[in-house]
Amino acid sequence: MQNTSETSGFAGRWVSFREDIKVLDCTIRDGGLMNDSKFDDCIVKSVYDSCVEGGIDYMEIGYKASRKVFARDRFGAWRFSDEADMRRIMGDNPSALKISVMADAEKTDYHHDILPKDQSVIDMVRVATYIHQIPLALDMIKDANDKGYETCVNLMSVSNVLERELDGALEILATSEAQAIYLVDSFGALYSEQIDYLVAKYLKYAKAAGKEVGVHMHNNLQLGFSNTIQGIVSGANYLDATMAGLGRGAGNCPMELLLRFLHNPKYNLRPILKCIQESIEPMREELGWGFSVPYMLTGFMNRHPRSAIKWNSSPEKDDLVGFYDKIILEEEA
Amino acid sequence: MQNTSETSGFAGRWVSFREDIKVLDCTIRDGGLMNDSKFDDCIVKSVYDSCVEGGIDYMEIGYKASRKVFARDRFGAWRFSDEADMRRIMGDNPSALKISVMADAEKTDYHHDILPKDQSVIDMVRVATYIHQIPLALDMIKDANDKGYETCVNLMSVSNVLERELDGALEILATSEAQAIYLVDSFGALYSEQIDYLVAKYLKYAKAAGKEVGVHMHNNLQLGFSNTIQGIVSGANYLDATMAGLGRGAGNCPMELLLRFLHNPKYNLRPILKCIQESIEPMREELGWGFSVPYMLTGFMNRHPRSAIKWNSSPEKDDLVGFYDKIILEEEA
Repeated sequence: MQNTSETSGFAGRWVSFREDIKVLDCTIRDGGLMNDSKFDDCIVKSVYDSCVEGGIDYMEIGYKASRKVFARDRFGAWRFSDEADMRRIMGDNPSALKISVMADAEKTDYHHDILPKDQSVIDMVRVATYIHQIPLALDMIKDANDKGYETCVNLMSVSNVLERELDGALEILATSEAQAIYLVDSFGALYSEQIDYLVAKYLKYAKAAGKEVGVHMHNNLQLGFSNTIQGIVSGANYLDATMAGLGRGAGNCPMELLLRFLHNPKYNLRPILKCIQESIEPMREELGWGFSVPYMLTGFMNRHPRSAIKWNSSPEKDDLVGFYDKIILEEEA
Repeated sequence: MQNTSETSGFAGRWVSFREDIKVLDCTIRDGGLMNDSKFDDCIVKSVYDSCVEGGIDYMEIGYKASRKVFARDRFGAWRFSDEADMRRIMGDNPSALKISVMADAEKTDYHHDILPKDQSVIDMVRVATYIHQIPLALDMIKDANDKGYETCVNLMSVSNVLERELDGALEILATSEAQAIYLVDSFGALYSEQIDYLVAKYLKYAKAAGKEVGVHMHNNLQLGFSNTIQGIVSGANYLDATMAGLGRGAGNCPMELLLRFLHNPKYNLRPILKCIQESIEPMREELGWGFSVPYMLTGFMNRHPRSAIKWNSSPEKDDLVGFYDKIILEEEA
């Protein structure tokens, strides 16, 4: 029984499911921000296999970063996502899972590094852009679209953008070839009422242009999953999640929670749990993602989590009051 | 600027605050389910001090359990909450913080163990009842009220109660002396749309009788905080939370998240963080509360977390797929 965006009422929502929803796993891409994208092949293969068996729609395997910006010997393979590396994991990807890469504006040598689609296992290029980079992002989206790829666009740090400028940005992005525009809660700072308001705004521009809206949520306030649910209720159809919530800082919406919530019988939880058990949880102590008070405080303050990431990997990590005092003092500046 | 339950609209909600909201800390009471209520005095004193300094409205210090049901030598002081034990922590409680105890139906020798108010530092008795115990609960509420206490009632496991019986229960509880009726998500199984629906139902009965509605949420699906927010948005004015989410299984709505969300300047976050750092986090490894896949699975299945608590304290604890297979097989029965 299909549940459209228009269905409302208590029994109409979680008991049923919405067929047009797409789930994107970005475990390796977003998690790569915690380890310079240095994942062993066996980890990447485990995530790939579990996405295939779990019925996930897209797997974002890494960044397509420029070698002119990122030193090849300092970062792992998944910062660059070369064809040879991807094919070592998945061959020609003989599955229904689509492969995505992220292309950051100003950090991607896209004319050179993004090959024509018929030479690549990549299916989709997601362009990530701050509001001041939109003209460049539009050119990147067009380039990828012309080469034969699906495209999406992630507009970052919207919690720090003035509303009239956000409207302007969405109006322009709606003219691009991107099939979906993502609401990205970069700092994990948004409450559900804000998600509802913003998704409605994104939908106004996106739907008029025949596009979908996506959501990418962080867990600084333990709202990664619930804000993704709010995105669904508000009409977003592209959903980002990661295995065990692995991601920068407090991490992301956990795939294991999202899949079960969606109730679409095409998704399977067991292979996801197997991947989490065998490949993701064993990295937790070293990578140290997940909710903690310092991430909560940067979230509440609508700030980049970099100061909390640094604190959490220092000998002071258990001094929660110390971090609070530090960040409150900085606020005076 | 006061924000009443009736205020709606984006800017009217989180930017302001609602003065009639009361926050109840139940760290020691609910956390006592993970250690047979055996907390050292220094831990209980730390929670008490931080509640006083943090501006919390109520602290639930423990259960008022019957010695005929619970062996005094197997459980710690906070299963019984004797006057001498409480006064060792707080003297005559020379503060604005009110002290609450929980009295479980059928597990409390209430005629004998609950003293007249003028002999006690307790301010409020919260009666916890399953639906089949309501006549007894009504007598317990009346007894406490007659002795001079504030009273509340927690109706447990509502996610397993048929709707027409829930309506009957609320109709009866609305005739009691309790100042608030709590919606309790015992198994951490409810989504925000269900919270919204249920709080509205509780309010219908409670408001007509001049009572408030409270919410007590668990974190099995990482929704403890967000469901508490949903409760606030839906009109609940009594809110349970615990330091660092300490509580049975996946734990509760974390106090540190809730206080900052509420934006009422009478609340202070720093003493809460100090308590978490010095007294709560050092217990995490031994007590093992907080989100994990086994708790997620019992939540999704709307079951008591006891099988997950047992699994998480066994040598199999990291075998997530093993627990999934076990619980799926049990479902066949």
